[in-house]
Order: sequence, then C-alpha cells, then structure tokens
Amino acid sequence: MSSSPSSDRAAAAAAEAAVLPVYEDVLEAAARLEDKTLRTPLLESPALNELAGGRLLVKAEALQRTGSFKFRGAFNRLSRLDAAARRRGVVAYSSGNHAQGVAAAAAMLGIQATIAMPRDAPQVKLAGTRRHGAEIVFYDRQADARERLAEAIAAKRGATMIRPYDDRYIIAGQGTVGLEISEQAAELGAAPEAVLIPAGGGGLSAGCALALAERLPETRIYTVEPEEFDDHARSLAAGRRLENAADRRSICDALLSPTPGELTFAINRQRLAGGLTVSDAEVMRAMALAFTHLKIVVEPSGAVALAAALSDRFDCARRTVAVVCSGGNADAAMFIRALETVAEAD
Amino acid sequence: MSSSPSSDRAAAAAAEAAVLPVYEDVLEAAARLEDKTLRTPLLESPALNELAGGRLLVKAEALQRTGSFKFRGAFNRLSRLDAAARRRGVVAYSSGNHAQGVAAAAAMLGIQATIAMPRDAPQVKLAGTRRHGAEIVFYDRQADARERLAEAIAAKRGATMIRPYDDRYIIAGQGTVGLEISEQAAELGAAPEAVLIPAGGGGLSAGCALALAERLPETRIYTVEPEEFDDHARSLAAGRRLENAADRRSICDALLSPTPGELTFAINRQRLAGGLTVSDAEVMRAMALAFTHLKIVVEPSGAVALAAALSDRFDCARRTVAVVCSGGNADAAMFIRALETVAEAD
Repeated sequence: MSSSPSSDRAAAAAAEAAVLPVYEDVLEAAARLEDKTLRTPLLESPALNELAGGRLLVKAEALQRTGSFKFRGAFNRLSRLDAAARRRGVVAYSSGNHAQGVAAAAAMLGIQATIAMPRDAPQVKLAGTRRHGAEIVFYDRQADARERLAEAIAAKRGATMIRPYDDRYIIAGQGTVGLEISEQAAELGAAPEAVLIPAGGGGLSAGCALALAERLPETRIYTVEPEEFDDHARSLAAGRRLENAADRRSICDALLSPTPGELTFAINRQRLAGGLTVSDAEVMRAMALAFTHLKIVVEPSGAVALAAALSDRFDCARRTVAVVCSGGNADAAMFIRALETVAEAD
Repeated sequence: MSSSPSSDRAAAAAAEAAVLPVYEDVLEAAARLEDKTLRTPLLESPALNELAGGRLLVKAEALQRTGSFKFRGAFNRLSRLDAAARRRGVVAYSSGNHAQGVAAAAAMLGIQATIAMPRDAPQVKLAGTRRHGAEIVFYDRQADARERLAEAIAAKRGATMIRPYDDRYIIAGQGTVGLEISEQAAELGAAPEAVLIPAGGGGLSAGCALALAERLPETRIYTVEPEEFDDHARSLAAGRRLENAADRRSICDALLSPTPGELTFAINRQRLAGGLTVSDAEVMRAMALAFTHLKIVVEPSGAVALAAALSDRFDCARRTVAVVCSGGNADAAMFIRALETVAEAD
C-alpha cells in the first residue's frame, strides 16, 4: 500500500479508535450526544416490582432514536471523522441495530453509508436502515464472514470501517446509557445494587461499566445473553475470550456474536461481576410483561436483561436492580408471537 | 341533611373543586406532581414525519404511571384531601384509566378507593385497578347510570366523589401534560403550530389549553374523537354542549362519554380551535405505526390524535404538530388485532 498523507491520517485515526476507552471518553461522548439522542426514561412498574420481589428500574432504550442504544455509539464515532474521511464514506456490518444507528448518524452528518446485513434480518431493521439512505449489501449469517466482506468494501472505497463494538468511541457512546442510569436512579432516590445489560459483542456493558465504575462503584454489573450464546458468561468465568458453538439458534437476532470483543472484554473482564443467560421462552415472557406493564415495545435481544430479572435467573428479592431494555426493533409477527405465547401476562 | 362541621368542610371542598381552574392551578399541580409522575418523553420519528409531511412531536403519555395521563389529575386531586376526608375514602366511576389513576394515587396516599367500572372494560384496566387495592363495583355500560351509582356509594360512606373531568384539580393535573409539551418542544427548538388531544370528557384538552394559552399562545388546539362520538367536534362548532347518540360503538373504550363536561367545555369552547374525528380503522393503523416507529404501546383511545395526524383528517404538511398519545392500556388481543389489520406499517 502506498503511503499518502490521507492514508496516513486514516491509519492514525484507525489506531486511535483501537485504544481502550476510559471514563473521560464517556463524558466527552455525552457532550457530543446531548441534543442528538433522547434521554430515554428509567421506567418503573409496581406490578413488575411485585413480580421481581424487589425494585426494578428499566432503562427504556428501545425508545432511542433508531429504536436501540446503537445510535449513541454510531453518532459519537461518526461525528469524530474529519472532512476527508466523511467524503469517503463509512462501511459497517450489523444484524440491524448498529446498521440503523450508523445509517441515521451518517444521514445526519451527510456521510454515505454502506452496511452489510444478514439476509434474515428482521424486516423492521432492513426498512429502518434503508430509510436513512444507506446502501445495503447482504450476507448469509450461517456461511459468510461478514467482517471480511465489510473490510473488503471499505478497502476498495477508501471508506472508514465502523466496527459494532471494538472501537473506543463506539464503547464510549454506549456508555452514556450508564451515565444516564446513574443520574436517573439518583433522581428517584435509588442506588441500584446491580445492573443487568444485554450482551452481543459487549460494547454496551463495557461502556456502562466505565460510567458506573465512577458513578456507582458499589454496583455489580452483569451481562445477559441467550442461553445458547453464553460466550460472555463463560468468558467472564474463565477470564479469557471463549467462542460459541457455530450451530446454535436464538430469537435474539442481535446477540449472536461468536465471541466477546477484544476491547470490550478487556474492560468487561475487569469490571463485571459475571454473566447470566436466559431462554427464548423467558425472553418472550419479558416482552409480554413489558407490553402489559411498561407500555414499551422490546425486541427479543433487548428483553434479555428484563427476562433475567423477572425469572429465577437473577434474584431481585429486596434489592434495587436496573435493567437495560436495549432495543425495540421487533417485527410485528415476532411481537404477536410473544403476546400469544404468554397467555395473560398480568 | 344535618350540618356537622365535617359535612360543612366536605361541602366547602366540593364547592372548591367545582370552581373553574386557571393557569396557576396547573402550575400548582406541576409542583405537587413533580416527583410523583414521569416526565414522559416527547418522541419523534423520521418515518412518521415523512408520512405526515411535517414534523410530528408525540407526547408518550402511555408511559405514565398507570399507563395513562389520568394519574396526574387523580394524584393532584387526592393529595388535596384533608386527613378527615382521606379517612372516609374516595369513590370514582371510570372505564378504566381514571380508575387506575385514582386507585394508584389512593394507594400512595393511604386512602381507600371504590371504583365503579363497566363490565366490558379491558382486562388490563380491571387488573391494574385491582392491583392497587381498589374495590371494584361493576356497571353495565349500556344500561346503568354510572354517575348516580357512584354518587350513591359515596353518599352512603361519606366518601369523596372523584369526578373524571369536571373538577378543578383534575383538569389542572391533566394540564401538566401541556406544560411539559411546551417545555420539551422548546428543548427541541420547536414551536408546534397545533396540538391534537384525545377527548372523552375534555379534561385533558381543557387542562392543556390552560397551560398552552400561557406558554404557546399562538398554538391551535384541537380535540380528537372517534367519529361516532363526536360530541366535542359538534359542541365546539355549535358553541354549546351537544350529546352523542346512545347506540354507537367504538373500539375507543375510554372516549365514550355522552357529552363534554361542564367545566371542561367552559374552558374548551373559549380556547380550542375545533374538533377532529377519526375512524376505528385509522386508530388501528396509528397503533401499528406507533409500534413500528415509536416503540410504544398505545391503546385505541390513546391513539386518536396520532391517527388524525397520520391520516387526511388533519393536514400536517410543512407544519410542526404535537399529538398526545394519552394511554397505553390495550389488551393483548386488541393490540394483536391492530398489528394484524395493518399488514406492514412501515
């Protein structure tokens, strides 16, 4: 590769994004995102508290712009690109929420975005990504190496690759969820003993861990995953990154990453208390309970932490526990299935 | 009736509640409600903006405690009862949202509540009212005079009747929705040209009208009703209170009041620009669009204003319009029906 000033700058920027983020990066992200994101409410329901036997505080990140927390990291990352990089565009791969986050942030900043998405992504995620003007390139979730595909496109176009979680500014952006939880809990006069966070690549939990280590140092943080995709649970227990078996399925289409991220795990292994898992049935029950008692639409992947708190996977008895409902991009058919499966989630 | 000091006090309190509220009552309600209610978000979606051809700001009051705005008025009213009145309890009649608001406020204040509810109220509303420990007395929506039934119970027990809308403090409490809309719109750098508000008895629109007349005096306020229950639309046009025909049906179970309230109409006729109506089909489409693009659960009655903005009932082209999604207490079966009816609400 020839070394032009522009490719030097791009290499320097890529190196910077590969640095481990710290608390100050989260604060800086919060400042960049202030008038761009919704401060999603921290919801509470007497009925859910009763079911949990404690006090549940639900961060309704499904209400975030693009329907998930992913917009936070994406906007933070893209807003840092210089003019030359913006002109060359961005490339990402994503099962759909990072895709929409990148597409929306790119549209707001006037950047061309190309996203590699799995053919079987929920329709609502494909439509949302298209709506923001992004170009979609399909891959086969079972067969293709999505990262290599995206990297090849980026290399060909000189575009910047926006990784879904192994990126300093992505992690820092997601961490603003943790900042808000600490602020909003304080407004309610509450200090959560534990925070449960859905985990795919681990960017949301890593970002929140950075924020909460400063704001609520006593709080124990747990990842929550589908039981067949328990790479964080096992990796946190083992102290090193382990992989999921390749042949597993789950309705949680956003949490199917094969292994924890490198940067994210470097943070998560130091700061997290452990990893929990839930079944698809527990996830659907949580979606139905969120419908009935919180009036929010939560997608399967977004409901795993709530599912852990509302099942015997995590003991909330007489404790204050915050859970992140991280996304709401469920197709109607899946949502109907959750409501029908759970007879009356009252 | 013998005149004891306690019945004198009760009569004086009842007379006070029958006074027409003013803007200062809304401000006082806001202070009382500050740490009791959720400041529900004012949501926005690029997809809905595109559909409307303008800028739609959606006040997501479905997320409010008890799943509707009714908690605001109920808590404001009940918090003003003196110790003697609190001991004697409260009585209300309601299709379910005022019921839950009164039940929850009563539970928080240690007051016994009895609520007359229609036999065909949505299960989610009956369950929600029961959960807060209220006693439920059933009536037949088609046959019984619910107001007389509730008044008889109140008289027998010496309890205070908490009217659903014709009450100074109820109206003032609901008006805090309008205060918040004006604040949150300003935070977004927006000044809505119009605000669309669901209307049953007219308490929410009257309260909001008091707030908005001070905060956004140029904004035009419209009630929105089911087309078969267009008493506000016709009454506002005629300048006097008109009734609905008795034999009509609508899926909007919370908007079936026979006629505008006395106090509410005294305010609404002065301050409102007019009344709009929507069909059940338009309501179901709005529920599905709120699911897809806002990730909130809206019940039929709560969706009428959004339905007006997203249909040709109200022209939003190139305008900023705020709509109140006033409640989210939909049974799963009704919600599924809305999602299924509207093929793909993308």
